[in-house]
Amino acid sequence: MNDLIARLRTRLGAAHVLTGEDAAPWARDWTGDYAGAPLAVVRPADRDEVAAVLWLAADFQVPVVPVAGNTGLNGGAIAPGAIALSVARLNRIREIRPESRLAVVGAGVIVEALDQAAAEHGLCFPLFFGAAGSAMIGGVLSTNAGGSNVLRYGTTRALCLGLEAVLPDGRILDLMTGLNKDNTGFDLRDLMIGAEGQLGIITAAVMRLHPRPVERATAMVALDGLAQAPALLTALQDASGNEVAAFEYMPRAYIEHARALFPQMREPFEAPAPVNLLVEVQARRIGQAGAALEEVLGQWLEAGRIADAVIAQSEAQRREMWALREASAEIVFCRHPVIDTDIALPLDLVEAFLTRIEPLIQQVDPGCESLAVAHLGDGNIHFNVWLTREDAALAEALRETIDRLVVGMGGTFSAEHGIGIAKRQSMARFKDPVALDLMRSIKQLLDPAGLLNPGKTLP
Amino acid sequence: MNDLIARLRTRLGAAHVLTGEDAAPWARDWTGDYAGAPLAVVRPADRDEVAAVLWLAADFQVPVVPVAGNTGLNGGAIAPGAIALSVARLNRIREIRPESRLAVVGAGVIVEALDQAAAEHGLCFPLFFGAAGSAMIGGVLSTNAGGSNVLRYGTTRALCLGLEAVLPDGRILDLMTGLNKDNTGFDLRDLMIGAEGQLGIITAAVMRLHPRPVERATAMVALDGLAQAPALLTALQDASGNEVAAFEYMPRAYIEHARALFPQMREPFEAPAPVNLLVEVQARRIGQAGAALEEVLGQWLEAGRIADAVIAQSEAQRREMWALREASAEIVFCRHPVIDTDIALPLDLVEAFLTRIEPLIQQVDPGCESLAVAHLGDGNIHFNVWLTREDAALAEALRETIDRLVVGMGGTFSAEHGIGIAKRQSMARFKDPVALDLMRSIKQLLDPAGLLNPGKTLP
Ligand SMILES: Cc1cc2nc3c(=O)[nH]c(=O)nc-3n(C[C@H](O)[C@H](O)[C@H](O)COP(=O)(O)OP(=O)(O)OC[C@H]3O[C@@H](n4cnc5c(N)ncnc54)[C@H](O)[C@@H]3O)c2cc1C
Ligand SMILES: Cc1cc2nc3c(=O)[nH]c(=O)nc-3n(C[C@H](O)[C@H](O)[C@H](O)COP(=O)(O)OP(=O)(O)OC[C@H]3O[C@@H](n4cnc5c(N)ncnc54)[C@H](O)[C@@H]3O)c2cc1C
Repeated sequence: MNDLIARLRTRLGAAHVLTGEDAAPWARDWTGDYAGAPLAVVRPADRDEVAAVLWLAADFQVPVVPVAGNTGLNGGAIAPGAIALSVARLNRIREIRPESRLAVVGAGVIVEALDQAAAEHGLCFPLFFGAAGSAMIGGVLSTNAGGSNVLRYGTTRALCLGLEAVLPDGRILDLMTGLNKDNTGFDLRDLMIGAEGQLGIITAAVMRLHPRPVERATAMVALDGLAQAPALLTALQDASGNEVAAFEYMPRAYIEHARALFPQMREPFEAPAPVNLLVEVQARRIGQAGAALEEVLGQWLEAGRIADAVIAQSEAQRREMWALREASAEIVFCRHPVIDTDIALPLDLVEAFLTRIEPLIQQVDPGCESLAVAHLGDGNIHFNVWLTREDAALAEALRETIDRLVVGMGGTFSAEHGIGIAKRQSMARFKDPVALDLMRSIKQLLDPAGLLNPGKTLP
Repeated sequence: MNDLIARLRTRLGAAHVLTGEDAAPWARDWTGDYAGAPLAVVRPADRDEVAAVLWLAADFQVPVVPVAGNTGLNGGAIAPGAIALSVARLNRIREIRPESRLAVVGAGVIVEALDQAAAEHGLCFPLFFGAAGSAMIGGVLSTNAGGSNVLRYGTTRALCLGLEAVLPDGRILDLMTGLNKDNTGFDLRDLMIGAEGQLGIITAAVMRLHPRPVERATAMVALDGLAQAPALLTALQDASGNEVAAFEYMPRAYIEHARALFPQMREPFEAPAPVNLLVEVQARRIGQAGAALEEVLGQWLEAGRIADAVIAQSEAQRREMWALREASAEIVFCRHPVIDTDIALPLDLVEAFLTRIEPLIQQVDPGCESLAVAHLGDGNIHFNVWLTREDAALAEALRETIDRLVVGMGGTFSAEHGIGIAKRQSMARFKDPVALDLMRSIKQLLDPAGLLNPGKTLP
């Protein structure tokens, strides 16, 4: 292995091949649940160096694990005994073409940085979630990340026009189109998106930008239950012309956990509400978003369909509302053992699911504690459970219980975080077997030696 | 072969295995450029019968070609000596879920019929083009059809949530999710979409519906050239909140050809204009679309940036405008020999392309006549050339000339009609060779015997 490392140093420069202490930040993931020291962390400067790393690793039969911001929540970027290939140096925004509303970027560009660069042209890159300041384009493409603006802009898939990837055999797949329409053969772009680094290493992409909303109107809404939530969303969509950007759910227990962990955070309502919704409407003309929000919330308050509502009167107030929501990952992972999920259901079944799941998990692990927080507009719930004890089989049994109910109700066991290590058993249990078999064949086709991110995604 | 036909009749019922005269409608395509009599046309009633046809055909080593509405423009559904498998009987709209804005449909449901069914719920299925009254869901999915509303709603891909396909080996791939977010492994759905019947036969799908616009404002705009068109589109998007549904280009020559073929059609302007744009803005509130259109066109007229404009004052006037645009396929294919293209370019390069291409094609075929008509908002031009003589090599040379300029300018040689037979040479010349190789491997993986729609799409 020393020989491999020496050759990597020759090819990339010694400064870009990290081992020992220098590689320590890559030895565990953000959640703390997945760990394993990589043999080395390499930081190639361009796609040719990426290919060179793959060739060298293949010579030595050493696996390669691509890593971007290392904020993924399923253990997918953990690289025990492997080469962790960081795309962090592929971080150039090569071009922004405002008239075509697109950006040509390296895979190491940070999500937030792209949005800031777009802002200079009156545009935005609307992908938004708690880790947007660290996650990189290569990472969000590979997990097809969602977040809080999917309702309005779609997932990362919908924001990608073209990409470039180095295949496991080192060849470069060039799909760097910036066109909205391109029907020249099979859709290899979307095959690479969401593939969690199983089929190639994404090195660059053409990303779609959107006009920057000039107004955002944000509110917290108090409800007694979730029954009215789908109708409220429809009313807001109608009033705003489908400009609802976020529709996020925080139950009572969530607010309490947040305030326990972050004492500076405040109760959103004088009378604490069972259901708190963070709603954001945007507009391209000043006044429109605020008007739509006030109109609907006013009517609903009057009709007694919502218990209370507060519209943010300043950017500071808006940020305070979002800080509460964005604390979710920290709240969930500050206590272990925990299982986190990212299930999704048809919107109108979310309440039924939450009611039905509670007794089921209590049967499996009496005394366990659940906490839900959701991108409710997408029907996407982070349903998390703190276990009573560290026990891998128990954790898996809980996961199976949750998945089974979700799938039975027409939902999915992973809406946005993907599979990685965390959900391989869910794949085995609940994915269509023909689909699974096809995925395995495609993996085998592209990576016959099985050296790219092995042991993840596919059970 | 008689034995095969007998066995098909036993399995499907004699009424659903057509031969001889009965099969004649499938022996040529809509353009008249592609012909070849199928051995038989079969009309399975469900996915199990589709699988049975594939097994029987495999026993006899006879190719199978899926066909839906047979309106494709690239020869992809032509089945000489093969079994043409029509999905026309899979034509049930199984379910419309208005609250989730989706429809569960068989692959044989006609595009227009789905839109009509959606209308009963205040929704729409917004895919729209000249053949929407004949094209079927399985066909538009397999070509990832575009049309005149892509600007607002995306291509067919963006309208599909889930699908079911019978693989070449007869296994059923079940990806019938109705969720907006689902990250459970590789994106096999998008691999099937746009695959032109190479990788499986789509039997059912979950399609996205949209709120039905309550107002449509439609105008014809006269310009002296295309230079101002991108700015006009941006102005309309800004004024309407991105509700521009169509932005279609018809040059002077197009209007003349249309009026020659359809004498009842009228000149849109008193002073015939070099550039005619059909613009449609929609809204979910009465008055908004008309106001946006009037505001922008009024300002532009006053500023002398457009030469003239007519806003449709009635549905009859709107239909008249659209009839002119929708006549394009008939205009192009009423005269032969012709090559039709569906290239796309960045919007701001369309005018430069049209100027530069003319002398190049005249060099190849002096005296040939070109005619452009475009989904301009997508940069997607149907650039068609009537040749001076029937000559396959000349036709291919013209195609190569057009493709080379397009690709050199950052465009694509097929934006919406796909490859089929027509553009196999373009694929060989201009598609990234690594991508092409990967497509071939995936085809080989799924269809090792090469019996599903052979000789198409991949060169
Ligand atoms: C606080 C917090 C909040 C979050 N909120 C959300 C949320 O709301 N919605 C949501 O969807 N997700 C959320 N996430 C998780 C989200 O998936 C990740 O933040 C993000 O998508 C991963 O990006 P990354 O650059 O960190 O990728 P990494 O974690 O480095 O990698 C993720 C996966 O992609 C692979 N990969 C990385 N780079 C490449 C490449 N260039 N080519 C091929 N494969 C590659 C890795 O091997 C790994 O399997 C959150 C995470 C945190 C920590
Ligand atoms: C007047 C006119 C206007 C048009 N305008 C446009 C336009 O504006 N934009 C645009 O994009 N296209 C346009 N088209 C072409 C368009 O591609 C087709 O109309 C449509 O997508 C094909 O649908 P179909 O049901 O007729 O499919 P078919 O022609 O029957 O088949 C198309 C292809 O898909 C395959 N296929 C069919 N069904 C299945 C299935 N169930 N599973 C797998 N493979 C299958 C076939 O083998 C073939 O390769 C136009 C065509 C006409 C005639």
